[in-house]
Amino acid sequence: MAQRYQVTLLGGGFPVPVGSGQVHNTALLIGPDGDELSRYEKVHLFDVDIPDGYKYQESQTVMPGRRLPKLYDSEDLGKIGLSVCYDVRFPELYRHLSKTGAEILFVPAAFTAYTGKDHWQVLIQARAIENTCYIIAPAQTGTHYDRRQTHGHAMIVDPWGVILADAGSEPGVAIAEITPNRLSQVRRQMPSLQHRVFA
Amino acid sequence: MAQRYQVTLLGGGFPVPVGSGQVHNTALLIGPDGDELSRYEKVHLFDVDIPDGYKYQESQTVMPGRRLPKLYDSEDLGKIGLSVCYDVRFPELYRHLSKTGAEILFVPAAFTAYTGKDHWQVLIQARAIENTCYIIAPAQTGTHYDRRQTHGHAMIVDPWGVILADAGSEPGVAIAEITPNRLSQVRRQMPSLQHRVFA
Repeated sequence: MAQRYQVTLLGGGFPVPVGSGQVHNTALLIGPDGDELSRYEKVHLFDVDIPDGYKYQESQTVMPGRRLPKLYDSEDLGKIGLSVCYDVRFPELYRHLSKTGAEILFVPAAFTAYTGKDHWQVLIQARAIENTCYIIAPAQTGTHYDRRQTHGHAMIVDPWGVILADAGSEPGVAIAEITPNRLSQVRRQMPSLQHRVFA
Repeated sequence: MAQRYQVTLLGGGFPVPVGSGQVHNTALLIGPDGDELSRYEKVHLFDVDIPDGYKYQESQTVMPGRRLPKLYDSEDLGKIGLSVCYDVRFPELYRHLSKTGAEILFVPAAFTAYTGKDHWQVLIQARAIENTCYIIAPAQTGTHYDRRQTHGHAMIVDPWGVILADAGSEPGVAIAEITPNRLSQVRRQMPSLQHRVFA
């Protein structure tokens, strides 16, 4: 019997100081009672040169994490793995999570408007499909400090790649039900995780 | 200066007998003069249970390949890596190819209509985006032996994920220009291949 479970995710760009003026770009999973359930420090830093008039050199202020994320087992909801934003371009991180048993992948992000329009939804859906996992992807939206523009479209995607909720480009909320039965159904029909040879 | 180069790809389900009644599902790259330039034997076999009234148990007739594909360097066009169909669900195969220098990824396929409508384009675009590679994806289309239905939509995608050509669901041809300059431009803007840590 599916049970409703409340999960609160804070951050997705939550700067945790590490000394020497730098921070870890940290994803946190916080339970209903405020306890920290899981923590992940972003490994892949966004040092890119896209032509949108803004200089992205995350490594100037952020110290990269060095460890692959570990799962948090929420029992009622499933096994949850964290990641952050630019990580979504690196499928090996999510293969690690699904190999260790992930059923729900979090991808909090502040995707740029420039890359987001072409890449955000595709990559989110692909991570869901190839890992037959739910994806919960909070996303920053709007214009920040009068310059940096983010894509928005916070979304929740099911393990078949179906978009269950999309918060669009305005501030808002994406809500969808996570049902372990749907996960089981997709994994029966498409047991690709069992067919891995090289990962 | 970009030079036009003619590449012919045969197969994408080209059965090559291996004895004992079995075959390898083999992708071949054939040059303009008929020479075999590259060969890859499909590793991941399509044993799935989707509800479209057809039983897919590729392993009953196909012996899996055991080796990751090697690149073929076409010099004028770029470094080409082969894969087949269901492989596209396994990002680690394409990470191997891009790590060894791939610039163009072939994904000949006979995707089912049932999975294709939800997964084909997303996965093809994701492989292009995350590896900043061109994708050339021939695809079977139509109804076969009055039962099995394939998705079609042979397509060519650029390294930013833009669909340059889509042959749709009717028999036809997808044609697009592969321009090494575009590849260089995308990789300057989005150097994510240089940011890999775990693959």
